[in-house]
Amino acid sequence: MRNTTIQTACFFCMLFFSINTFGQEPVDFVNPLIGTSNYGAAFPGPIAPRGMASISPFNVAGPQNRPLEKDSQWLSNPYVNENTFLTGFSQVNLSGVGCPDLGVLLLMPTTGAVETNHLKYGSTYSKEVAKTGYYSVDIDKYKIKGEFTASKRVGVSKFTFPKGKSNILLNLGLGLTNEEGAMLKVVSSTEIEGMRTVGSFCYNSPEDAYPVYFVAKFSKPANHFGVWKKTPKYEGTEAQWMGYNGKTRMMKNTIKTVVGDSIGTYFSYEFDKKETVEVKIGVSYVSIENARENLERETGGKSFDAVYKETYDEWNKELSKILVEGGSYQDKVIFYTALYHTLIHPNTLNDINGEYPQIKRTKIGRTTDTRYTVFSLWDTYRNMHPLTSLVYPKQQSDMIKSMLEMYDENGWLPKWELNSTETFTMVGDPASIVIVDACLRGIQDFDIYKAYHAMLKGADQFEENPLRPGLKEYLDKGYLSTNYPGPVSTTLEYNTSDYAISLLAKALGEKEDYKRFTKRSLSYRKLYDKDLKLLRPRTATDNWYEPFDPIAGANFQANVGFIEGNAWQYAFMVPHDIRGLIKLMGGDKPFSDQLQKVFDIKQFDMANEPDIAYPYLFNYVKGEEWKSQEMVHKLVREHFKNEPKGLPGNDDTGTMSAWLVYSMMGFYPISPGDPIYTLTTPMFDKITIQLDPRYYKKENIVIQREINSDGKIKEIQLNGKTLNSFFISHDDFVNGTTLKVIQE
Amino acid sequence: MRNTTIQTACFFCMLFFSINTFGQEPVDFVNPLIGTSNYGAAFPGPIAPRGMASISPFNVAGPQNRPLEKDSQWLSNPYVNENTFLTGFSQVNLSGVGCPDLGVLLLMPTTGAVETNHLKYGSTYSKEVAKTGYYSVDIDKYKIKGEFTASKRVGVSKFTFPKGKSNILLNLGLGLTNEEGAMLKVVSSTEIEGMRTVGSFCYNSPEDAYPVYFVAKFSKPANHFGVWKKTPKYEGTEAQWMGYNGKTRMMKNTIKTVVGDSIGTYFSYEFDKKETVEVKIGVSYVSIENARENLERETGGKSFDAVYKETYDEWNKELSKILVEGGSYQDKVIFYTALYHTLIHPNTLNDINGEYPQIKRTKIGRTTDTRYTVFSLWDTYRNMHPLTSLVYPKQQSDMIKSMLEMYDENGWLPKWELNSTETFTMVGDPASIVIVDACLRGIQDFDIYKAYHAMLKGADQFEENPLRPGLKEYLDKGYLSTNYPGPVSTTLEYNTSDYAISLLAKALGEKEDYKRFTKRSLSYRKLYDKDLKLLRPRTATDNWYEPFDPIAGANFQANVGFIEGNAWQYAFMVPHDIRGLIKLMGGDKPFSDQLQKVFDIKQFDMANEPDIAYPYLFNYVKGEEWKSQEMVHKLVREHFKNEPKGLPGNDDTGTMSAWLVYSMMGFYPISPGDPIYTLTTPMFDKITIQLDPRYYKKENIVIQREINSDGKIKEIQLNGKTLNSFFISHDDFVNGTTLKVIQE
Repeated sequence: MRNTTIQTACFFCMLFFSINTFGQEPVDFVNPLIGTSNYGAAFPGPIAPRGMASISPFNVAGPQNRPLEKDSQWLSNPYVNENTFLTGFSQVNLSGVGCPDLGVLLLMPTTGAVETNHLKYGSTYSKEVAKTGYYSVDIDKYKIKGEFTASKRVGVSKFTFPKGKSNILLNLGLGLTNEEGAMLKVVSSTEIEGMRTVGSFCYNSPEDAYPVYFVAKFSKPANHFGVWKKTPKYEGTEAQWMGYNGKTRMMKNTIKTVVGDSIGTYFSYEFDKKETVEVKIGVSYVSIENARENLERETGGKSFDAVYKETYDEWNKELSKILVEGGSYQDKVIFYTALYHTLIHPNTLNDINGEYPQIKRTKIGRTTDTRYTVFSLWDTYRNMHPLTSLVYPKQQSDMIKSMLEMYDENGWLPKWELNSTETFTMVGDPASIVIVDACLRGIQDFDIYKAYHAMLKGADQFEENPLRPGLKEYLDKGYLSTNYPGPVSTTLEYNTSDYAISLLAKALGEKEDYKRFTKRSLSYRKLYDKDLKLLRPRTATDNWYEPFDPIAGANFQANVGFIEGNAWQYAFMVPHDIRGLIKLMGGDKPFSDQLQKVFDIKQFDMANEPDIAYPYLFNYVKGEEWKSQEMVHKLVREHFKNEPKGLPGNDDTGTMSAWLVYSMMGFYPISPGDPIYTLTTPMFDKITIQLDPRYYKKENIVIQREINSDGKIKEIQLNGKTLNSFFISHDDFVNGTTLKVIQE
Repeated sequence: MRNTTIQTACFFCMLFFSINTFGQEPVDFVNPLIGTSNYGAAFPGPIAPRGMASISPFNVAGPQNRPLEKDSQWLSNPYVNENTFLTGFSQVNLSGVGCPDLGVLLLMPTTGAVETNHLKYGSTYSKEVAKTGYYSVDIDKYKIKGEFTASKRVGVSKFTFPKGKSNILLNLGLGLTNEEGAMLKVVSSTEIEGMRTVGSFCYNSPEDAYPVYFVAKFSKPANHFGVWKKTPKYEGTEAQWMGYNGKTRMMKNTIKTVVGDSIGTYFSYEFDKKETVEVKIGVSYVSIENARENLERETGGKSFDAVYKETYDEWNKELSKILVEGGSYQDKVIFYTALYHTLIHPNTLNDINGEYPQIKRTKIGRTTDTRYTVFSLWDTYRNMHPLTSLVYPKQQSDMIKSMLEMYDENGWLPKWELNSTETFTMVGDPASIVIVDACLRGIQDFDIYKAYHAMLKGADQFEENPLRPGLKEYLDKGYLSTNYPGPVSTTLEYNTSDYAISLLAKALGEKEDYKRFTKRSLSYRKLYDKDLKLLRPRTATDNWYEPFDPIAGANFQANVGFIEGNAWQYAFMVPHDIRGLIKLMGGDKPFSDQLQKVFDIKQFDMANEPDIAYPYLFNYVKGEEWKSQEMVHKLVREHFKNEPKGLPGNDDTGTMSAWLVYSMMGFYPISPGDPIYTLTTPMFDKITIQLDPRYYKKENIVIQREINSDGKIKEIQLNGKTLNSFFISHDDFVNGTTLKVIQE
């Protein structure tokens, strides 16, 4: 999704990367600094697989960090690798998104007198070390070393202070977005409880701003503690009475509850030698009590090192579901880091006792599995969820169950759900695709009929339908007119969803629905402009929209017709009907030429989803498959690197990373909803994907590459038998044993 | 204390007063509207004796209420009788104070669409009925009747709505002061919980702002509910992202915690006929849980009427400790209303489970008696506490225990304590006087030696002494110089405290201390200017302060020398040494002439404490006692009436009212600390004061007036024996049976 290209040089990359540990386990190949520049929007700090809590260094506040400063430009991440001014460590964070949210509960160690203004207490930093589940950094101004790890719902920080007066600040005012409002109470000299308002994602639906609750426990009792509150500035007669007007009030050693927009606490220590303090911060979206229970049950009695070890092991277990052999160290790093990035979102919403806030926060729900959240479905339906279905099917199943719970709670499947708020970001009705795709890949341990019913509601209900605005026109005309924003894009999204529904209808024997939705899925054809060989917006009177510039819309510029893209970037976004599109375009050659032109005229955008499958589309033209092989390889090399700017743009909650994981393994889910893959050259000699016996019959799939050249594929064999196309069904794939790709 | 005279006519008095119920019990004579104009600062709504919760109509916001509008001038009360624009009903309130605080948790019923801006939803009102423990009013705009009662920690509101859509708003943004910050959570369609920041009194010590927690329960489940939050206004780039910048966000049917400076909830109903809803709001200064427990244990399962009946009965029991016979209806009204006003503050701080926040809110304490708060001691030491010692000695005992707990918690006796914050308002060290006075009147069931130790600390410790600034100079010179604010006033206060300490030292056999403090108590004499026959400030070089205007300082104007007064209003404020002052002035005649002059030149201020005992001082001059009798009678008639402006100014947490109670009973505690009374003409035929057998031997005291003229006193008899002076010791008084005052 949203991304802006930036050319700022990465001054510090070499320095940081020389420190990375070289190990042998998959987990040791992860470099969390990848994607922390170039608007990748990843953060380098620790998180457990699909964790609720995470810790990120926060360096996007303060004029020192301009231009990549959170208030002076749109910035969706708490950390930017080239920034230099650190103002704390946020305890809840989003990874790889295009809008800011979370990035709050800022913990900051300082020394000397307590200073509560982050512009004054901030510092440069050095000696960053980022590993799976671990981050450390030296805070220059104070000569403090910070180390960080996390369990699923608890961030653990460890500060090594020099001798003298030291402080740990928990700033509840500063945060990534403009949302404000916090409450806190110092429970004792070792504990703080409270909440902070976060949301609303993209500044949409601001009434849905919601609380994150927390409990912080300190390993050493503070010698002094206190709360600060900055008072808003009053004017007029009444201001004369307030000596403290606009100033910060310091409240010492108090256990009273303090609320406000700009508040924080400090815990101060007097050390007569170098000392460490560990701070555990448990979070919850339900209550302070649950945050405390999360903290106690996940990390109670455990040292920093013990928590780190558990998270490290958990990551290694997850990442080891795919073992790669051969290939360079750097390739292993970008591969496992990408796999790591696909295991961050969707993440856990429920507390350890099973409780979670239901959609719209009208009730507290309870789950015995995992309630997932952060469904950036417009991004993730394309490849992230199919990958999860293959490698982590139980997680995918729980994600579908979470989506169906949302339907129960809210009456609608999610569109872009975040911590039980529906942000309604982006267009289309992607939940149906995700569910059908998983179902047809064999994940069926959920209420399929309920899911089908939910899909039909979203696809058919005209009145107050939050998922498909313009549905009536879409059904009347076959497309949305320029009366709606991004009408071509939205039409294509609806078509794709309708295709997925048609597949499920067919599987369920719902013949009428099958026919109906199959027909609906092809209506994009009415937007095909034969002269331009592009899809083009039409007005409400069915005329082509004029004046029409097919280039307009590149680099996320707003334009009539398309959302986050232009006519070139959407021309082939009919993954379910590429063969139909080939016919429309006049056959293989014109199709292939037009597809090639996208790249030639530099309209292919690796940093966004609409055209993400383009490199694979040459596989639809017999004899041109080598172009896909070349293009995918080229794009991998060009856009994915072991460096902070090593992602093409926003990771989009793992979508870019999932693209890389697939592309390096040599297959890609070319038509979301359809359980098929198209094939290309793997970038490792051998890839072993462990299959979950609860969902798959075979123990694993092995992909082998023969002849170590980068030449064209000569032959592909499944269990020794030659495949006669560059497509393979999911069933054949998971029930085969070995896929061998033989290069020339 | 603070007061500004206002001449605005009371347009509505006649209307309101015609509705008052005429009853026979003491409780039925109370008119809570007395003191709600002329800066009396009383509120007309319900409160239980010494209750923590109370309800006041809130009509001090909005331009409609100017000039008596809370932000356009200093206003210390939630209600002003002549104002017309009502914006809710506050659930915690102070009575008769000179600085604003509390006046928050504003409940407001409306009809139609939900409007959250108080300037828009406010209304005129009519048909006010104010009785002990009960208030009702019609809210014109909505045709809603509101009725209100309260138990000790719970306010109960009952709204009668017309058919249609109705709403009950709980506005946590609006409040009496500029302090902001609140948190709330709708627990269910019948319950809200939360907190609101209040303080700091007089805008002093703003870091001591503190939370009041609450739970609100509704008798009928809301059909819809929601929370609103007004967003602060941002500027600059970041503001562009916020479509809601500076606007109010409506959050429907949510159970999430919301915090902010300007937030509130609404509960909405759809009624198909006229309906009532009762709302119980339990409060606590400890926690939400305690607020809920207070609500449940005090009012759980009880109807509005049942709560009202209990509070009515409790008030009647308290007020019936003094029974008056004879006298007019109006005199009974002003008398019992005054007695009622002395039973509001100090009030209960502890929750029903005994918990309360300790001073400075570093810990939660627990009491098995009552922890009292709101100690406006500069006011109340003069007469309110002596009255409490006589009529409600158990309460006075618990108040002393509360003060000693504060000493334990804080290291110092209180000066002006408010809900466990020490506001340090006013001057002097009055706690000692209150404790000694009670002790010498026979209330001795507390740790007297601890109290003595605490007094000595306040009287003797130079370093960081928050009670007696300038102590060293006071001891060196005998007075404070003009280096300090209000040096004459402060010197007199220290003298008075030192006299009280000397009395206790004597009682305890501490001979050295007795001598030392006796001497200290007379040091004011160094400020006596023989020429002026007034007390006059001296500079640090011991010279008289020049230029000196004895009139400067009237009407609360700031001046060098005096706090809230001038040289005339302080000239006789040496209650413990009036005989010494007579000598200084050259004998009875010059003394009497000078005293008379205060009245003649209109420098006597009935509305403030320094000169409050002046009318009684003629009793020190043999043969002039009739002047006291006349003056007291005249002042009662002039300043105390059965109407909203029926108090001379701020009631000062019952001090003005206590003066009236004494003055109408015909005796007065002329020298605080000294267990003596001086006598004047009672204003009733018979007064029976019931004595508490836990503290006093006799069952009661009866005061009788003979011959119904307003003439001079001819003779006073105690148990039939003629008294030979107009003074009587507390012991003689409480051990006598009948005091008969025989007029000429």
